[in-house]
Amino acid sequence: MSAGKLSYQLLDKDNPVFSEFLLWSSILIVKFLLMAPLTSLHRFRTKSAANPEDMIVVRATEMGAPNEDVERIRRAHRNDMENILPFLSAGLFYVLTDPKPMLAIWLFRVTTMARFLHTFVYAIYVVPQPARAICFFIHFVITLYMAFMCILYFI
Amino acid sequence: MSAGKLSYQLLDKDNPVFSEFLLWSSILIVKFLLMAPLTSLHRFRTKSAANPEDMIVVRATEMGAPNEDVERIRRAHRNDMENILPFLSAGLFYVLTDPKPMLAIWLFRVTTMARFLHTFVYAIYVVPQPARAICFFIHFVITLYMAFMCILYFI
Amino acid sequence: MSAGKLSYQLLDKDNPVFSEFLLWSSILIVKFLLMAPLTSLHRFRTKSAANPEDMIVVRATEMGAPNEDVERIRRAHRNDMENILPFLSAGLFYVLTDPKPMLAIWLFRVTTMARFLHTFVYAIYVVPQPARAICFFIHFVITLYMAFMCILYFI
Repeated sequence: MSAGKLSYQLLDKDNPVFSEFLLWSSILIVKFLLMAPLTSLHRFRTKSAANPEDMIVVRATEMGAPNEDVERIRRAHRNDMENILPFLSAGLFYVLTDPKPMLAIWLFRVTTMARFLHTFVYAIYVVPQPARAICFFIHFVITLYMAFMCILYFI
Repeated sequence: MSAGKLSYQLLDKDNPVFSEFLLWSSILIVKFLLMAPLTSLHRFRTKSAANPEDMIVVRATEMGAPNEDVERIRRAHRNDMENILPFLSAGLFYVLTDPKPMLAIWLFRVTTMARFLHTFVYAIYVVPQPARAICFFIHFVITLYMAFMCILYFI
Repeated sequence: MSAGKLSYQLLDKDNPVFSEFLLWSSILIVKFLLMAPLTSLHRFRTKSAANPEDMIVVRATEMGAPNEDVERIRRAHRNDMENILPFLSAGLFYVLTDPKPMLAIWLFRVTTMARFLHTFVYAIYVVPQPARAICFFIHFVITLYMAFMCILYFI
């Protein structure tokens, strides 16, 4: 383990790695949360209720089969859960490995951009593959890299 | 960025904002975890197996279609994932913006109550809309507010 | 509240409880992330597309019904979300309660092993129950215990 900085110095908002992590993570959380109203919007538009008691809200006359547009957004939302949520922890732990600031900051920026693009090509305007696969892969590899760096550092 | 307190002073259990965040977050985690045994209970009651190897456990004689009561609890569980899990990060980051203690503490309390009520009206005793929508909305807006405050603070 | 250590001393990588938490959490994050390529692998193998634009990627000629092997891995993945993600927060908060080091470190180790075994008996090589139930239960009870210890400590 390096003799380097103490953890409380790394977990300080004056550490640019930490404050950029907090900034981009918060942006990702906002993006993640907005999947819920996006789902609602499409439930209204397609009159697709998730539960019998929701039928009056979305003006549905029957429960019917799941609507494909709604399901697509729910898949994008689930994909966010599978990727953004572990990143929120992996990124925080990665800050504690005292990475090179420029590398860490750009990883946070790129990975956030990748998740915005992922949602765009998945749930807003469907773009043929490999658009979504590439967006997924960028964030995935960066999160995996951060977790591996933590393992090597804290082992 | 304010000249104010250092992060390690904010992330201290003697900071009431932090210790209340830890308390209410832990209560939310317990509530979240209990969705699993609640699902199991309804799987037993309705003899609904999620996998062929579970049939013997829940005394099911066939896989059958998903049971609506079980699926309702799973939707409530998923909604918890979509909302409680990002809150656990957003709330922690929000503590670092050094918010007014009374405001922050009441936001933690109200948002926890809202999620308990959400589960109650969704999965325990179904109450007509907009009961569930209101519970969802309270927690959703508070988490969104916290994430926005973080963006403004760390930008 | 004990007079004990300050939070910033507990949240230090020189605190073995914290550094072991970071190590095993990072290992769990890697394990969690690998569920995505495992799903993809089975989508390729069974030519099961999740979206129409993925058909060309997995060489599917029609969307078809969900493949049972793919769905099994997705259920294991969802179970990871329901259990590993709250653990990442509960474990971090638990470090702040200044637990006995040997107890805490072994809880982190056992709970990580339990999740690896859970995935193995669920999605790699299906073992009859109660194998999966036991693996689930070990991690579940440990996470619940940590959250309860936090509630008692921060109340």
